[in-house]
Amino acid sequence: MTIHIEALTFEVIIGLLDFEREKPQRVIVDMEATYPYKDIFLDYAKITESIIAHLKTKRYELLEDALLGIKDELMGEYPQITALKLKISKPDILSECSVALSHSWEFNS
Amino acid sequence: MTIHIEALTFEVIIGLLDFEREKPQRVIVDMEATYPYKDIFLDYAKITESIIAHLKTKRYELLEDALLGIKDELMGEYPQITALKLKISKPDILSECSVALSHSWEFNS
Amino acid sequence: MTIHIEALTFEVIIGLLDFEREKPQRVIVDMEATYPYKDIFLDYAKITESIIAHLKTKRYELLEDALLGIKDELMGEYPQITALKLKISKPDILSECSVALSHSWEFNS
Amino acid sequence: MTIHIEALTFEVIIGLLDFEREKPQRVIVDMEATYPYKDIFLDYAKITESIIAHLKTKRYELLEDALLGIKDELMGEYPQITALKLKISKPDILSECSVALSHSWEFNS
Repeated sequence: MTIHIEALTFEVIIGLLDFEREKPQRVIVDMEATYPYKDIFLDYAKITESIIAHLKTKRYELLEDALLGIKDELMGEYPQITALKLKISKPDILSECSVALSHSWEFNS
Repeated sequence: MTIHIEALTFEVIIGLLDFEREKPQRVIVDMEATYPYKDIFLDYAKITESIIAHLKTKRYELLEDALLGIKDELMGEYPQITALKLKISKPDILSECSVALSHSWEFNS
Repeated sequence: MTIHIEALTFEVIIGLLDFEREKPQRVIVDMEATYPYKDIFLDYAKITESIIAHLKTKRYELLEDALLGIKDELMGEYPQITALKLKISKPDILSECSVALSHSWEFNS
Repeated sequence: MTIHIEALTFEVIIGLLDFEREKPQRVIVDMEATYPYKDIFLDYAKITESIIAHLKTKRYELLEDALLGIKDELMGEYPQITALKLKISKPDILSECSVALSHSWEFNS
């Protein structure tokens, strides 16, 4: 089974530039986590809270580090995950486009 | 050939929480079913009705069980299906995002 | 190189039901065609015209036959195509969803 | 890590037809670039500027040559890229659809 958190949208301090350190900006997180379903299921509400809390606490400078941080957080809480896709978008940082960073991991369990 | 049922949207009792057992909520089902086309075709209207009727009758607590139930229902009716993708979204359960569960199956026919 | 015709939308007689034989309905065609680019390119305007003209002339009953017909038409005109994806959607035939049929082909050239 | 530039929208001279040589038209560029993240990251603002400047300077006749030109430009600036996907859409050139050209490259680094 694969759980999807789609278009998780909130404001957070993220980025390298001066104004990004001072004022929260909108980010959009998309997540797909695959796991074997046998009685135990993943709680989408808790996953969503973990992602938001992680980014709000860490105030990352780089999207790269943000992706790695969320991955470690989720794998610590949900070791049953066998594959994970994460994407963080900054829809407002450039006027002509949306920019994002993504990565996928596969885990042998 | 692959038949697509996209953004099939209706209200149904689904979920674990008290208020989810009491009040129907909006779900969105997406389906892709692959089958060999030789004179016999799949009827998209019947597939759509089967999915809606199945979820309305079963009133699942878990999206995991809902996916498995729809899969069994469709495979019982359409044994010619060789590959099936199902996704159920709950667009309204969390305010910051849409959550969904998906799975894909391949069948040897 | 892969050429994309996306959301090609027009009205045409298509379908099995009585009212579908009498009144044109909206269809949406999506196409991806891969070909080796060496001086010769594919003309997206001509491809679009071919698809529309083919469906308007043939007035197919089944989406399955419509896909096969468009494939034969395009491969006759553009034998340099090495891979083709086609999808036809009927967005208005069911009220709760959009239905579509798709198929992909790979050709040895 | 994969960086995404999505729906990068601007006006540029592109195309073969007389009116396309005279008047800028809207294009939409989508890019995905994969690279190994180790301290060095890709600057999405610079990538975006490079793509816009390249297309504005070159005023390509063919989308095919535009894709190849952007690819060479980006690989010259960012040799650490190991995989690249590019897509250029002309959303306004045909009234019934959007047309686009895409290609993907993998590089051994």
